[in-house]
Amino acid sequence: MSSEFGRILRVGVFGQSHGKAIGVTLDGLPAGEAVDLEELQRFLGRRRPGNSPLSTARKETDVPEFLSGLENGRTCGAPLCAVIRNSDQHSGDYAELADKPRPGHADYTAWVKWGGQADMRGGGHFSGRLTAPLCVAGGIAKQILARRGVFVGAHLDAVAGERDRPFPLYPTAELFAEVAAKPFPVLDDGAGERMRDAILAAKGDLDSVGGVIECAAVGLPAGLGDPMFDGVENRLAATLFGIPAVKGVEFGAGFAAAEWRGSRNNDEFTVENGRLRARTNHAGGILGGITTGMPLVLRVAVKPTPSIGRAQRTVRLSRMEDGELTIHGRHDPCVAHRAVPVVEAVTAAVLLDMLLEGNHGTF
Amino acid sequence: MSSEFGRILRVGVFGQSHGKAIGVTLDGLPAGEAVDLEELQRFLGRRRPGNSPLSTARKETDVPEFLSGLENGRTCGAPLCAVIRNSDQHSGDYAELADKPRPGHADYTAWVKWGGQADMRGGGHFSGRLTAPLCVAGGIAKQILARRGVFVGAHLDAVAGERDRPFPLYPTAELFAEVAAKPFPVLDDGAGERMRDAILAAKGDLDSVGGVIECAAVGLPAGLGDPMFDGVENRLAATLFGIPAVKGVEFGAGFAAAEWRGSRNNDEFTVENGRLRARTNHAGGILGGITTGMPLVLRVAVKPTPSIGRAQRTVRLSRMEDGELTIHGRHDPCVAHRAVPVVEAVTAAVLLDMLLEGNHGTF
Amino acid sequence: MSSEFGRILRVGVFGQSHGKAIGVTLDGLPAGEAVDLEELQRFLGRRRPGNSPLSTARKETDVPEFLSGLENGRTCGAPLCAVIRNSDQHSGDYAELADKPRPGHADYTAWVKWGGQADMRGGGHFSGRLTAPLCVAGGIAKQILARRGVFVGAHLDAVAGERDRPFPLYPTAELFAEVAAKPFPVLDDGAGERMRDAILAAKGDLDSVGGVIECAAVGLPAGLGDPMFDGVENRLAATLFGIPAVKGVEFGAGFAAAEWRGSRNNDEFTVENGRLRARTNHAGGILGGITTGMPLVLRVAVKPTPSIGRAQRTVRLSRMEDGELTIHGRHDPCVAHRAVPVVEAVTAAVLLDMLLEGNHGTF
Amino acid sequence: MSSEFGRILRVGVFGQSHGKAIGVTLDGLPAGEAVDLEELQRFLGRRRPGNSPLSTARKETDVPEFLSGLENGRTCGAPLCAVIRNSDQHSGDYAELADKPRPGHADYTAWVKWGGQADMRGGGHFSGRLTAPLCVAGGIAKQILARRGVFVGAHLDAVAGERDRPFPLYPTAELFAEVAAKPFPVLDDGAGERMRDAILAAKGDLDSVGGVIECAAVGLPAGLGDPMFDGVENRLAATLFGIPAVKGVEFGAGFAAAEWRGSRNNDEFTVENGRLRARTNHAGGILGGITTGMPLVLRVAVKPTPSIGRAQRTVRLSRMEDGELTIHGRHDPCVAHRAVPVVEAVTAAVLLDMLLEGNHGTF
Repeated sequence: MSSEFGRILRVGVFGQSHGKAIGVTLDGLPAGEAVDLEELQRFLGRRRPGNSPLSTARKETDVPEFLSGLENGRTCGAPLCAVIRNSDQHSGDYAELADKPRPGHADYTAWVKWGGQADMRGGGHFSGRLTAPLCVAGGIAKQILARRGVFVGAHLDAVAGERDRPFPLYPTAELFAEVAAKPFPVLDDGAGERMRDAILAAKGDLDSVGGVIECAAVGLPAGLGDPMFDGVENRLAATLFGIPAVKGVEFGAGFAAAEWRGSRNNDEFTVENGRLRARTNHAGGILGGITTGMPLVLRVAVKPTPSIGRAQRTVRLSRMEDGELTIHGRHDPCVAHRAVPVVEAVTAAVLLDMLLEGNHGTF
Repeated sequence: MSSEFGRILRVGVFGQSHGKAIGVTLDGLPAGEAVDLEELQRFLGRRRPGNSPLSTARKETDVPEFLSGLENGRTCGAPLCAVIRNSDQHSGDYAELADKPRPGHADYTAWVKWGGQADMRGGGHFSGRLTAPLCVAGGIAKQILARRGVFVGAHLDAVAGERDRPFPLYPTAELFAEVAAKPFPVLDDGAGERMRDAILAAKGDLDSVGGVIECAAVGLPAGLGDPMFDGVENRLAATLFGIPAVKGVEFGAGFAAAEWRGSRNNDEFTVENGRLRARTNHAGGILGGITTGMPLVLRVAVKPTPSIGRAQRTVRLSRMEDGELTIHGRHDPCVAHRAVPVVEAVTAAVLLDMLLEGNHGTF
Repeated sequence: MSSEFGRILRVGVFGQSHGKAIGVTLDGLPAGEAVDLEELQRFLGRRRPGNSPLSTARKETDVPEFLSGLENGRTCGAPLCAVIRNSDQHSGDYAELADKPRPGHADYTAWVKWGGQADMRGGGHFSGRLTAPLCVAGGIAKQILARRGVFVGAHLDAVAGERDRPFPLYPTAELFAEVAAKPFPVLDDGAGERMRDAILAAKGDLDSVGGVIECAAVGLPAGLGDPMFDGVENRLAATLFGIPAVKGVEFGAGFAAAEWRGSRNNDEFTVENGRLRARTNHAGGILGGITTGMPLVLRVAVKPTPSIGRAQRTVRLSRMEDGELTIHGRHDPCVAHRAVPVVEAVTAAVLLDMLLEGNHGTF
Repeated sequence: MSSEFGRILRVGVFGQSHGKAIGVTLDGLPAGEAVDLEELQRFLGRRRPGNSPLSTARKETDVPEFLSGLENGRTCGAPLCAVIRNSDQHSGDYAELADKPRPGHADYTAWVKWGGQADMRGGGHFSGRLTAPLCVAGGIAKQILARRGVFVGAHLDAVAGERDRPFPLYPTAELFAEVAAKPFPVLDDGAGERMRDAILAAKGDLDSVGGVIECAAVGLPAGLGDPMFDGVENRLAATLFGIPAVKGVEFGAGFAAAEWRGSRNNDEFTVENGRLRARTNHAGGILGGITTGMPLVLRVAVKPTPSIGRAQRTVRLSRMEDGELTIHGRHDPCVAHRAVPVVEAVTAAVLLDMLLEGNHGTF
């Protein structure tokens, strides 16, 4: 059950990094929804490693083939299956790793769990490559949401301690589009320069860096979600932690709020144009697990890429003795910037699922 | 489906703060497990507001009655239901709140969702009072886990920016017991003093403070959990966000790792007494969603109590116009210290559920 | 996870036949729904053994106490918990059975599963007594459905081979009410007489009989349910098999259709008052898992009560040798007539859950 | 959520009858399991329409391509995805049907649900063609089960009222293999002749017939399943009703037991070679939802193929007026014999899922 999420809209990801193909199934999409394949391809392009020195040199075309669920460019009620063939496979690079688990990777835990049966070439099913089919799902979800006035966007909030400025109190679809069109997804391009420098510096040191992504959704109705274990936070967090390298999730002020007093953290209410608004949004648009109608705001911590060029100490599993490992091959000195559309994708898919649960428990 | 979690072990919480009773059902407990009611009562006592100036003056005896599932002090395979009668109800205190949603509370979102039908006296089903039945569930889970060598403990990591020292690399059951026995659950009592002072200072200012809880589990087998959406992080986060006031969850180094380089964050492996160990534990005992066998470590951000004595700006829903609200009644100037056993309870219940899924997908 | 069903509306049953109490939790009920407790009590009365010679002499008052979820006679959005205290307990009657599993009962399978830890007095959690809380859930569901024009009714279709006449093509709420008001729930009272005679004859022979229940629901919208594994049939069958003693479920013509030709079984369509209708209803109102708008019709096979007064051969588990058992105590010579409201209850709860999934995957 | 089932082992089917491809995903398979592709192909062959006059003339090669989850002939822990390309498409045959729903088909309910957006060519996602990927899933499950001594087999119990003899009290793997090797899957070849004659007679009359399938599983441990809503019957029935055309499911004596007395239906226990056995198996190997260790026996009612060559009355949806329809194209005069391996497949997949839940709630 590891590779699926959602309740009305079930999203399931399959494939291994160096297998024949990766892909995604979406069961429960509303029927009759147009899917703009060019727009989807642009969205996938934001995740893809390019010719930039900031990313792996691995070439991925990432053009999905739709096997089912789409007829004449529209969803048809049946489960959608999209497949992306793997092409650029250098699995020879991974021979040594079978016996020497990479620090910070799932090699060791996969070995414990599946006793060497797992296909761990390139990270296997744990690979960041699996975020491509996630983006197919989320890209479709984003199109469906946008037609109903719900927009999801994200930017790189921090890399290696260099901070972008945060989203404004009311981010807009236009702002989201503007960031998405940039080669490096930040609000403040100066901060972006400093982040790039930090990435290249780490790369020069055969090292890597992590980052933080801020994601927001606007246009959500108030009243979405349920108290306790089925709230918006619960369901988003459960899924966001499925993105490889994510180690923390917070909503609104999050961990910062833990240092504040209530008088600072509480979002006072006011009436604006006949509608209730919060004067601040430290709650990130969620109170008691339920949307307030203010923008949904969350932040995700992405750890530094575990694959680094430096020699690292590890264990030779076959002999259970200490050993050393130098990872060759092509690796991203940072994955946080490429994870920006992935966080959008997951957020959009979860929100669409929750909206599809219908008029929220009434009929 | 809002008030339940778990897969093999289903935990469901019911009740409203000012209703007849609150309670919990546990379906899927292994049969034949002894439940030490005195130990359970001591565990519940850690959550209960006492006569301390740090907590609400509300008196709760919190003695559960077991209606089913226990026979002769042991689980009998049938669902367990435990009920705690509410006694100390001052629902008159909440009359004004029906029209003026408290900032930072779920009053407004409940009003949107249930159109005034919700019983929101004292927070209703959103109340921190509901954590008492959660502790009944978690306290039983802790006893079952302990018999199998799995121990869960937590301490108050920070309050209002005052930091306790972190758990050591290998926390022990003894350390957990030591912290649990303290009136204020910290490792460093000096830090504890500073935290108490911060709480009392906020109280004096008719304000409140938040905090961070660090929780650890030792004795878990390596190999628990699944990649992507069904990992240990996913399932713990999904449930931890069900604790009222939790706004952030991180595992291991979490958000700090986002500022580090890979060479610092990666936990190198070594062999100790014939077993693989990590030299550090920035991963918090989880790689690829699966336990490594190192201690599981997580941190939870608790926002400052939204109920504060100061006047706050809000909206009169009946007239949709701005208004002011002064909350009377008894309130905690901080809930983070009382949430320590709740985080343990939720963590224990989720881990027991995952362990009950059996030998991890084989048979 | 054994004692719950439903997705938006989660129904969970707890208790053992001879424990302190039995009860039910309902999570996900729409808020603001009035619950007519007198009407509910009448519904529960239909299941209760009376002073009739057709049923067990066990006296059950079956008056639920509502611990949560109801405020001023209406649902309040929080989970509802209702408890029925057990009073008339003769658990001494069950001493011998611990070692000698009763043929046709779950004594043996419970012993295998829980190694003697299960509380099997009176059937424990397997007991027909647990259908009382099911009827609390279903009785509330029926009231909510009725306010929206959906009515669920059932009658005893057959006992020991004696057949009632089937429901007409379009059963009505009035017909359901008429049957429900009868002491013996049949359409044709003559057939009812023959059924009663068969039950009493079996009782006189220290034996028991089984029966078939036909249940129908009218007023359902067309388009409810999903193809393949999430259709109306799938979800109803999954839950109906949870009623003790049910061994078969069929929809529409069911097993009879397997003997027919397509030209007989196919329900041809026609237009009536501007609406599409089927000329017959061999599909039982479901095609491809989805409601057609015709009445939903299903039949449930109830096996003869396994507790009979005759000596039966069994095994002494402690010695693993053949033995004999004579069951004393009070037992129903037939449970099929008492199961009629239980089938209604389960059907209503499942249908309400499906309707609460909202406008069927759109928003 | 319509096209998936299972809990530890999630099986999801995708595709439409006349789309690009159909396929299946299996998430949660144990790793390291060999998959014998030739044996799988033979199993798929049992479902495929051949050149027999008993089946449709549609040619399907049904050779799955495995995109993921298999490495070197073994499962690798990652989700398995298998795809079958559609080739022999005559969607022109279905033009008229868009406006005139076929009696007994899901055309009308799909139209209500998806407003004409559904791809209903050849039944779309409702098509019996989707049972091919189900057989891929079930065929793999059967291989895994067989290695652990659990065997699943089925035969055609009845067609158009012509009855095969039932399975013996203890069916064997050899008997299952023998039936599976026959061109017409019956125990009594004489009965098989009469069934074939009935099918051909219906075909000659431009009509169709239904049938009943008996399925058994041997080698299951006692103690599998849970009481009430999570028993073996609940989970098998929920999934079996997902097979197109299934309208009834019964376990053991099923509906027949409803006509019997308890003294006949109860399976008395005895000791044989130190193990508890039932002298009869009217319970079908299940008591209280839990396996007894006796063979699991179930029967499934398959309605007559709704596509028949005779003119039928229906409605023209575009004008909401009565009309007539004559279905052209190639259709099976009976699908029950082809459904035999499908029932095996579904039964095997559900049982494997339940076995994978591990040591049944203990650890």
